[in-house]
Amino acid sequence: MDTELLRRLATPNTTKIVLSVVDGLGGLADTRTHRSELETANLPHLDNLAGDSVCGLTIPVDYGVTPGSGPGHMALFGYDPLQHEVGRGVLEALGIDFDLQRSDVAARGNFCTLDAQGKITDRRAGRIPTTLTVELCERLNQIKLPGVELIVEPVREHRFVLVLRGEGLEDGLAQTDPEREGVEPLPVRATSEKAQATADLANEFVKQAREVLSDQEQANGLLLRGFAKHPDLPSMPEVTQMRAGAFAVYPMYRGLAKLAGMEVSPGGGTQGSQLEALKSRWDDFDFFFYHFKRADAAGEDGDFHAKVLALEEYDKLIPMLRDLDADVLIVAGDHSTPSQFAGHSWHPVPILLYSKHGIIDRVDQFHEAACLTGALGIFPARHVLSLAMAHAGRLMKYGA
Amino acid sequence: MDTELLRRLATPNTTKIVLSVVDGLGGLADTRTHRSELETANLPHLDNLAGDSVCGLTIPVDYGVTPGSGPGHMALFGYDPLQHEVGRGVLEALGIDFDLQRSDVAARGNFCTLDAQGKITDRRAGRIPTTLTVELCERLNQIKLPGVELIVEPVREHRFVLVLRGEGLEDGLAQTDPEREGVEPLPVRATSEKAQATADLANEFVKQAREVLSDQEQANGLLLRGFAKHPDLPSMPEVTQMRAGAFAVYPMYRGLAKLAGMEVSPGGGTQGSQLEALKSRWDDFDFFFYHFKRADAAGEDGDFHAKVLALEEYDKLIPMLRDLDADVLIVAGDHSTPSQFAGHSWHPVPILLYSKHGIIDRVDQFHEAACLTGALGIFPARHVLSLAMAHAGRLMKYGA
Repeated sequence: MDTELLRRLATPNTTKIVLSVVDGLGGLADTRTHRSELETANLPHLDNLAGDSVCGLTIPVDYGVTPGSGPGHMALFGYDPLQHEVGRGVLEALGIDFDLQRSDVAARGNFCTLDAQGKITDRRAGRIPTTLTVELCERLNQIKLPGVELIVEPVREHRFVLVLRGEGLEDGLAQTDPEREGVEPLPVRATSEKAQATADLANEFVKQAREVLSDQEQANGLLLRGFAKHPDLPSMPEVTQMRAGAFAVYPMYRGLAKLAGMEVSPGGGTQGSQLEALKSRWDDFDFFFYHFKRADAAGEDGDFHAKVLALEEYDKLIPMLRDLDADVLIVAGDHSTPSQFAGHSWHPVPILLYSKHGIIDRVDQFHEAACLTGALGIFPARHVLSLAMAHAGRLMKYGA
Repeated sequence: MDTELLRRLATPNTTKIVLSVVDGLGGLADTRTHRSELETANLPHLDNLAGDSVCGLTIPVDYGVTPGSGPGHMALFGYDPLQHEVGRGVLEALGIDFDLQRSDVAARGNFCTLDAQGKITDRRAGRIPTTLTVELCERLNQIKLPGVELIVEPVREHRFVLVLRGEGLEDGLAQTDPEREGVEPLPVRATSEKAQATADLANEFVKQAREVLSDQEQANGLLLRGFAKHPDLPSMPEVTQMRAGAFAVYPMYRGLAKLAGMEVSPGGGTQGSQLEALKSRWDDFDFFFYHFKRADAAGEDGDFHAKVLALEEYDKLIPMLRDLDADVLIVAGDHSTPSQFAGHSWHPVPILLYSKHGIIDRVDQFHEAACLTGALGIFPARHVLSLAMAHAGRLMKYGA
């Protein structure tokens, strides 16, 4: 359901909802065994929970669309990911736990190597060590631009985040990375008239940065891409009348939850310590987002066995998740990350919804093929939140 | 498909479609037996018909949305219930068989008790007997308003319907019911500028009504809510090029069919007599809406066994429905009413579509779990009409 209908039907209750997102949950069958990672793993607790739940498969964004982490999570938080895009610069900022403000414009930056004619010879500046990037960012932070604040934050190797902070900034800016070597970086070009002033500021930054970096051999230039503003989403807690808390080890996922308006618990630690933190805040929230990372990482590495082990590690957390005794407990994924692909994919993602009042279908295993026969069917991930709220008695009737 | 595409593709034929709506059809499994009302009931004729039909499940409005009777039926009549809302005042008027005109504004009214300071002490006026409400409505009908006609119709106990009839009336009016006691009723407030004149008329009615009711002890005040105009829908018979007739015992469902532009057969009698009436009008219509109420009523009462019996009663009507020899016979529900909930719910509703030309899937039982494996899948209820028309040879090819 769309945000306005959700806002209209949402009604307070004392019920609790836990959304446990297993990053990159879905997979594909191994070509020899014809069994996916979920089918291969030994998942006694998940299978048991599936038996007590309704199951199905979610389509994260659209048929055939492979989502990044941004749209995958936005959908599970109830937003139509095609209507609410989270730009690359914003995601890069979230990934380093940067406290992005609503009016900021963020871009992803790379140091690069330029020759005497100013042409790019290495788009990644020989992947300089992070320590050097930290030092160079400190120098770039000294640059002054008229009327706006400038923040340059190191990421890893040759990567950094550029943030412009001030009033009236716009993000309609094309990237300066020509995506090939042997040519000069492009100037920052405004894609709309109202972004011209911001483009001028960004070009001024690039010009001054060239001077600052002129003593460098490898990192004597920079490339900017993914200029983006905070997406300024309707606040999920406000729309749903639920106090929402996020529990995640990694900054990117806390950042996405913060974009949605959730309160973010401190990051780091282990999956277990994050779950303990969630438990300790049980009275403070109505909705809990709990993120599990390792399945995606193993899938991205193309390591089938490691993904199986990651899923088995997650399975061991299920008794603790069930012990919370939430009214609604959902196990979902932001997208599939089949080991076979060594990357994200568009394939529908298994989901289970446990509820004290739900219909129980005949599914008693938690994997792709089993979920296909579940009562939830195959459905867009952006409906997960409204289904959760319905099962938690948090939606009023529509019409008389 | 939306109304404009339906209008464009609709083509006349001599085929007949029967849409038999079992109100509140879907249910949930009993926690002990793990069988729903449909699974528990002995339904030899429905199971047999399911075996000869394609089956599936409908989503009445949207994922997680619990529909009232209005949106539940509007969807089955081919309208997007989120685009065509039927207001509470209108439904209340339909519920007493009131002949609502396109320009009318209707509101639901309650008599209430006011103290000497004009503050509400009982929002339901002690649930005065219907006989007194009838008498008070007669008195209120004497009130004269400038330029508009006024109709006050009794409903039941303390409830009545107020209808303003005239040109230029608007329904953007907030309710006067503050939904608590110890405060005065609110004035009728226009929510848009163009509704101000109507608000003034409604306030004048309230003022005069207070005088008329001043001799009453319990019912000396009134509260108004759900101001709504006739939704002025595109006519379903015109869009589809089908003569459409409605057969229902209860006024609400005849009223909804009338909103859709169907010809409405006289109400009352029994389910059997309504089916006889339908049969006697076989040559007059192409599309027949036949409404069966008791399953919903039993579900609303939270009575699992009564709902099972209601479904078994409906099953006995199936041979007569099949004997009509319609080209397409559909058994559907406007929403689920699980006995467990003692109310409507958002759960997908079983549907079967029998057609002389349909694909027959493997489903040979008519209940939630069986329909999940049917060839229709899980789909929005607003597509039922176009599916019916396709199976009846009443839709042209789209594109060359």
